Amino acid sequence: MATVPLISDEAASAEVLAVFDDIRSVRGTDYINNFWRALANDPPLLKATWERLKQVMGPGELDPLTKEMIYVAVSIANGCEYCTHSHTAAARAKGMTPEMHGELLAVIAMASQTNALATALQVETDEVFRGE
Amino acid sequence: MATVPLISDEAASAEVLAVFDDIRSVRGTDYINNFWRALANDPPLLKATWERLKQVMGPGELDPLTKEMIYVAVSIANGCEYCTHSHTAAARAKGMTPEMHGELLAVIAMASQTNALATALQVETDEVFRGE
Amino acid sequence: MATVPLISDEAASAEVLAVFDDIRSVRGTDYINNFWRALANDPPLLKATWERLKQVMGPGELDPLTKEMIYVAVSIANGCEYCTHSHTAAARAKGMTPEMHGELLAVIAMASQTNALATALQVETDEVFRGE
Amino acid sequence: MATVPLISDEAASAEVLAVFDDIRSVRGTDYINNFWRALANDPPLLKATWERLKQVMGPGELDPLTKEMIYVAVSIANGCEYCTHSHTAAARAKGMTPEMHGELLAVIAMASQTNALATALQVETDEVFRGE
Amino acid sequence: MATVPLISDEAASAEVLAVFDDIRSVRGTDYINNFWRALANDPPLLKATWERLKQVMGPGELDPLTKEMIYVAVSIANGCEYCTHSHTAAARAKGMTPEMHGELLAVIAMASQTNALATALQVETDEVFRGE
Amino acid sequence: MATVPLISDEAASAEVLAVFDDIRSVRGTDYINNFWRALANDPPLLKATWERLKQVMGPGELDPLTKEMIYVAVSIANGCEYCTHSHTAAARAKGMTPEMHGELLAVIAMASQTNALATALQVETDEVFRGE
Repeated sequence: MATVPLISDEAASAEVLAVFDDIRSVRGTDYINNFWRALANDPPLLKATWERLKQVMGPGELDPLTKEMIYVAVSIANGCEYCTHSHTAAARAKGMTPEMHGELLAVIAMASQTNALATALQVETDEVFRGE
Repeated sequence: MATVPLISDEAASAEVLAVFDDIRSVRGTDYINNFWRALANDPPLLKATWERLKQVMGPGELDPLTKEMIYVAVSIANGCEYCTHSHTAAARAKGMTPEMHGELLAVIAMASQTNALATALQVETDEVFRGE
Repeated sequence: MATVPLISDEAASAEVLAVFDDIRSVRGTDYINNFWRALANDPPLLKATWERLKQVMGPGELDPLTKEMIYVAVSIANGCEYCTHSHTAAARAKGMTPEMHGELLAVIAMASQTNALATALQVETDEVFRGE
Repeated sequence: MATVPLISDEAASAEVLAVFDDIRSVRGTDYINNFWRALANDPPLLKATWERLKQVMGPGELDPLTKEMIYVAVSIANGCEYCTHSHTAAARAKGMTPEMHGELLAVIAMASQTNALATALQVETDEVFRGE
Repeated sequence: MATVPLISDEAASAEVLAVFDDIRSVRGTDYINNFWRALANDPPLLKATWERLKQVMGPGELDPLTKEMIYVAVSIANGCEYCTHSHTAAARAKGMTPEMHGELLAVIAMASQTNALATALQVETDEVFRGE
Repeated sequence: MATVPLISDEAASAEVLAVFDDIRSVRGTDYINNFWRALANDPPLLKATWERLKQVMGPGELDPLTKEMIYVAVSIANGCEYCTHSHTAAARAKGMTPEMHGELLAVIAMASQTNALATALQVETDEVFRGE
């Protein structure tokens, strides 16, 4: 169960429907997933989130699959069940093979363990890593 | 300050030196960064961590820069200061441009906010995302 | 499923029932939610947790709704499903409107993204922020 | 040290300076804190983040101090050092007294412990908390 | 639902079956829990994870129950539902009594709240804690 | 720098001094570490935290070193720098050898990686793990 009702097309305001239509158009599918239907309880938040997502995940220096795998990695590190499902599915739709999925998980697991070790050891940052 | 002393080459056992030598050889540099010198307080843990890291970050389906950016993303989501520095530097060394860095951060920021929103809304996972 | 059985009134010891009675009295309802019934497997932990919660969430400088929304924010950031549900419901019961809920989520999402960015950039704290 | 250089006014592009000017105008101070100077390495990310922050933290149903304390709470839960400093300072500037700070911390500490307990116990969400 | 199919014995490759057999042998049970069946989608990751787990959780300076309770503590702090269930069950199987479970939870709750407070206060580390 | 001033003995109220005295007496040392001096800005929060800590970390079913290592594990998983330092030092004072420290870190690193993997795979909890 969600903490808010999911907004159906029938219950949606014009402002919400306009966002739903744009999601449908950009993604080339009629399906609106639950995240957007829940977020639609606050139309300005829905619109701001979708507009920014569209921009961030759009064309750029990084290819779409790389961006999607980074999204999966952050979602897992943050322990977000819904996001792990939705972005793993999105990465598959963008070409992630089972072998790539396995490597993605191996890198995430590796980072998780060295993150814990570096925190445990409270290692001081080496001067050579300076970005300034 | 670290929670353990950093092990210098002079203080290192033969087991530790063998790992340090392998790090130097694989990375093509004489420099051993503080993480490994701290981890060297427990030689078996040092060896196991390095051996696995070498394997995970080695050649595969994902290119080295993609793996390194995923590593950065997890390190940031886990709030690891040292790892954020060391892997950001490693990503730069593997070709990450300022534009790519900016996009990486934009994806991480985007994921962080939708992760929080999905958790806040407790959205149920859509059937279409099933991986089974 | 929980990792422990939920303790019914019938199965509760006198020590547990005394806490349940106090919860009922303070909250003005007969309903004891699952968290307390699970925690009741360890009566001293149940008692200590409830006594402290009652004190912390009681009258003070911050009004009850503000405290409850802060509780929701922490629960979301910590990824606690149960707590997100129970404290969102509590905030509603204390007067949180849908508009306030939307703003609460917008602030949480904003903080989540700038938290990630500040960690990614490893920004040094400005002297002007000193609290000392 | 940061992972990127801080952009001074002298080194800033026109696009960055326009954002800096807006920050100065909205906040009524000449001081630009390090977060924005670091973020300025990616002008579009700087602009998008500032524009959204201005909107989210602007006038609404929740008063400015409440929003700022929620921001502090999320920053602490996410373990962000810089954000904890900057938003604690901002909350003070908006009227948070030492007594209110103490209560804020007490609520955050309380939530942190019951979040951990609820996760430990894997308590199932009560039907009465349904928001649908 | 998982993000990948669970691999049955019938669907398992020889490499996967060899790991399953070793799990069965080390644990003295025919039952292979879902984690390993999901991980089996990537045989090298399955093998590397199991081999390391067997080594880390094997005989050493810390007794098996202590190791298992530490595993539970980390799993709870990381908000991992599956791991909290599986390692709480494992700790019980290794002798954790209800009283020990209650104390374990009390320590985890205590640490969670002082962690939050120390982060909120940004306390500087005392010189006396130096491990160097 | 901390977000609040550290309270010296000279600046402390009678209520604060009483807690400081109890800390000195229980720990058998004159030294009051920075955490308590920062927390002393809110005397009731100082008192409640110390009283609970004293109770939780006192004699029970789990021995003091085991409790302290669990505290370290949670502090690392939560990314708390101060707590990692203070509780690692405390564990050493209670008898943690370098070998035990190494094993503690190995378990934490192992748990961190399987936590990430279980979240990535969204593994469903096996019926056999039921605690009810």
